[in-house]
Amino acid sequence: MPAPNFDVIVSLAKRRGFVFPSSEIYGGMAGFWDYGPLGVELKNNIKAAWWRHMVHLRDDVVGLDASIVMNPRVWEASGHVAGFSDPMVDCRSCKNRFREDDLKGKPSEIACPNCGNRGTLTEARQFNLMFATHVGPVADTASVAYLRPETAQAMFVQFENVATSMRRKLPFGIAQIGRSFRNEITPGNFIFRLREFEQMEMEFFVHPRDEDRWFAHWVEARHAWWTDVLGISDERLRLRPHEADELSHYSKQTTDIEYEYPIGWSELEGVADRTDFDLRAHAAGSGKKLEVFDEEANEHIVPYVIEPAMGVDRAFLTVLVDGYTEEQLEKEKRVVLRIRPELAPIKAAVMPLLRNRSELVERARALTADLKRLVPAMYDDTASIGKLYRRQDEIGTPFCVTVDVESLDDGAATIRERDSMTQERVSLDLVPGRVADLVAGRTGWQGVPRE
Amino acid sequence: MPAPNFDVIVSLAKRRGFVFPSSEIYGGMAGFWDYGPLGVELKNNIKAAWWRHMVHLRDDVVGLDASIVMNPRVWEASGHVAGFSDPMVDCRSCKNRFREDDLKGKPSEIACPNCGNRGTLTEARQFNLMFATHVGPVADTASVAYLRPETAQAMFVQFENVATSMRRKLPFGIAQIGRSFRNEITPGNFIFRLREFEQMEMEFFVHPRDEDRWFAHWVEARHAWWTDVLGISDERLRLRPHEADELSHYSKQTTDIEYEYPIGWSELEGVADRTDFDLRAHAAGSGKKLEVFDEEANEHIVPYVIEPAMGVDRAFLTVLVDGYTEEQLEKEKRVVLRIRPELAPIKAAVMPLLRNRSELVERARALTADLKRLVPAMYDDTASIGKLYRRQDEIGTPFCVTVDVESLDDGAATIRERDSMTQERVSLDLVPGRVADLVAGRTGWQGVPRE
Repeated sequence: MPAPNFDVIVSLAKRRGFVFPSSEIYGGMAGFWDYGPLGVELKNNIKAAWWRHMVHLRDDVVGLDASIVMNPRVWEASGHVAGFSDPMVDCRSCKNRFREDDLKGKPSEIACPNCGNRGTLTEARQFNLMFATHVGPVADTASVAYLRPETAQAMFVQFENVATSMRRKLPFGIAQIGRSFRNEITPGNFIFRLREFEQMEMEFFVHPRDEDRWFAHWVEARHAWWTDVLGISDERLRLRPHEADELSHYSKQTTDIEYEYPIGWSELEGVADRTDFDLRAHAAGSGKKLEVFDEEANEHIVPYVIEPAMGVDRAFLTVLVDGYTEEQLEKEKRVVLRIRPELAPIKAAVMPLLRNRSELVERARALTADLKRLVPAMYDDTASIGKLYRRQDEIGTPFCVTVDVESLDDGAATIRERDSMTQERVSLDLVPGRVADLVAGRTGWQGVPRE
Repeated sequence: MPAPNFDVIVSLAKRRGFVFPSSEIYGGMAGFWDYGPLGVELKNNIKAAWWRHMVHLRDDVVGLDASIVMNPRVWEASGHVAGFSDPMVDCRSCKNRFREDDLKGKPSEIACPNCGNRGTLTEARQFNLMFATHVGPVADTASVAYLRPETAQAMFVQFENVATSMRRKLPFGIAQIGRSFRNEITPGNFIFRLREFEQMEMEFFVHPRDEDRWFAHWVEARHAWWTDVLGISDERLRLRPHEADELSHYSKQTTDIEYEYPIGWSELEGVADRTDFDLRAHAAGSGKKLEVFDEEANEHIVPYVIEPAMGVDRAFLTVLVDGYTEEQLEKEKRVVLRIRPELAPIKAAVMPLLRNRSELVERARALTADLKRLVPAMYDDTASIGKLYRRQDEIGTPFCVTVDVESLDDGAATIRERDSMTQERVSLDLVPGRVADLVAGRTGWQGVPRE
């Protein structure tokens, strides 16, 4: 089936506790969203999958967790104070402001789209997308600071501290997950374009001579992560190298990993060759040397940087969009969130077949407690088994465990797998280990169709 | 030994990649710090230990991950816009600003501590501790928004969404980990008092009649977490109920969990009985009902809230301070970070006894790769074994694995435990499982003193 409409996803997300509008009881806040109980679990699982593959499983990448507010000179040196802006047009009459890109014509020739007056629009002026605030007791120009618009700069600024404390030589990378903020004029499409968002960025420092090899490595490694780790459909992914005229000022080559959303192909992640642009900018801005010693050439050099950078929120949206499926069963329709077990907010839901049989309830609750020691699990008896299955299917729970009357005799329970709806009968004391092994991919599913 | 000086911790933290001053190459930024490669791992492990015990292992708590910027009406209703402030005094002459608490006398009677002029200090005025910014294209009074000074309010504001989507009845809690910001006039003592910090807060909603029982439960449960999960020395912890005159305006009873730092007893965590103050404030502010139906009494009620709230950064500092020990060995002094294996940034370091024997290097590297699949591990051969042990001791690595010449014959390696310095000889293929079991506490250590 084609990717579902955003509306379907927004509705599921709200109804099942994945994503809520921020401050909804106060009318919300454009460009800001909250992750609910299931959302925070899915988001954490995506972040953990990135961290594991980018940091823990590699020998050449270490982590960082920098402050969101940094010394404002960081953003002067990086070019963000001067250049991180959109051209905006004001109406002198109604005081509204518009993105120049959104206007249907030149400001000097068209009427104000809001009040309709002519000749009231100003020429375009640059509007900086960084959120500004004041740090310290006095709110004057000297105390202005910014919420970071990207996490990347912290890796350049702390390059020397990291390299020294961790005794690193080229090539090595610094990875970070954290919030960033951009005062987007037109946020929208649910969590697709946000004013507050979370990034996963990694700056990989290499010798300039190894630039192309590492660029190719990261494009391939990141593409493989989306398919093999996040489980995103390969046929909805493509690599798109940037044309020369769309490259950022700091980039020599960039390849986007794009996904085919309902709204069309859009960027999921970008792998950029930032050269030595950033380290040189901060060396100039700070007066500190940001170099490494190249033993082969016996000289100090400024490393080049290959950067894979992505947004967590967009990855989250993509997992929902890509996993969402509607199936027509014999008697009913079911919605299934076909996501990797490692990503699922809840790994197993335990239910007694009859909720008024205390022996069943007792065993199911005890089993839930045992399961919880190994994987996130929940107990539910608030509906019929069929309805409980549908609920768990919709939130992507890979395994449901049913304790039935037979369990009292054979001491076993039925594990039912989400996608195939096949079942295994497993001894109660082995259920937690079996589920944990299945979730971790240490063993395969051997279910049989229900009799 | 007594708790070490902060200076010792700051130096270790910087040198070994735990914590760096934010934007250090630009002269830093008062009240802001960055977590380096080892720091981010320790911090993540502390957060994971909290989430596991507060959310995953319980049936009655779910998570939330809200935006830092919320609708500003949240902070009007909560009382922060009007009341979250410190009294400040300005000097009319030199324009400096001071906390009234820091002045040694009445502003009208003393000289300015900066310029020395008399009669130039203003009366105290309230200075709000929230960082303000502007959201949207126009920076006017209508667009003012704040960086949250606490994560708690999001749980009250999303109470209804969470309860409905997750079908929750009392009692239940909402937990959140996230950044908060306070424009402290006098940040300091390393990461003890920050302007940007991370909180772990949980709002537990109960029937008013169950208030005292749950308050007692949470004081006990949180105290047990510090000792049993984080491994903090019980003799450096105490519970201190607030006196009536120090209670916050929203609190009916509060008990602090305090730790004996080098600077004296200070708050680690507070458990507060917030009553129905917040839900009523937001119901009044938003015009929405924030209630639940009490089936027993057959009426709608506003729940009471018990809140355990703590700062991650302070927990991090406490783990370092409490774990830091200096030991006099026969020939040398060693510094050991005695922290729980679950908290350690690196669980195992693998080293070849001789780095110029390629067979040893090869096996050690292969073993590192195997270990990494189960736990964060690293390879190191940049110094002698003794020196490598000291390095790992200092960063709290619980296990070092040495591949020696004998390994080539017996296919085994030596695991050395950090605190006891005793050793086990374990078959190479069993090392990863053995280390993972030890770290998870699934099995006990059986080391013997080195021959």
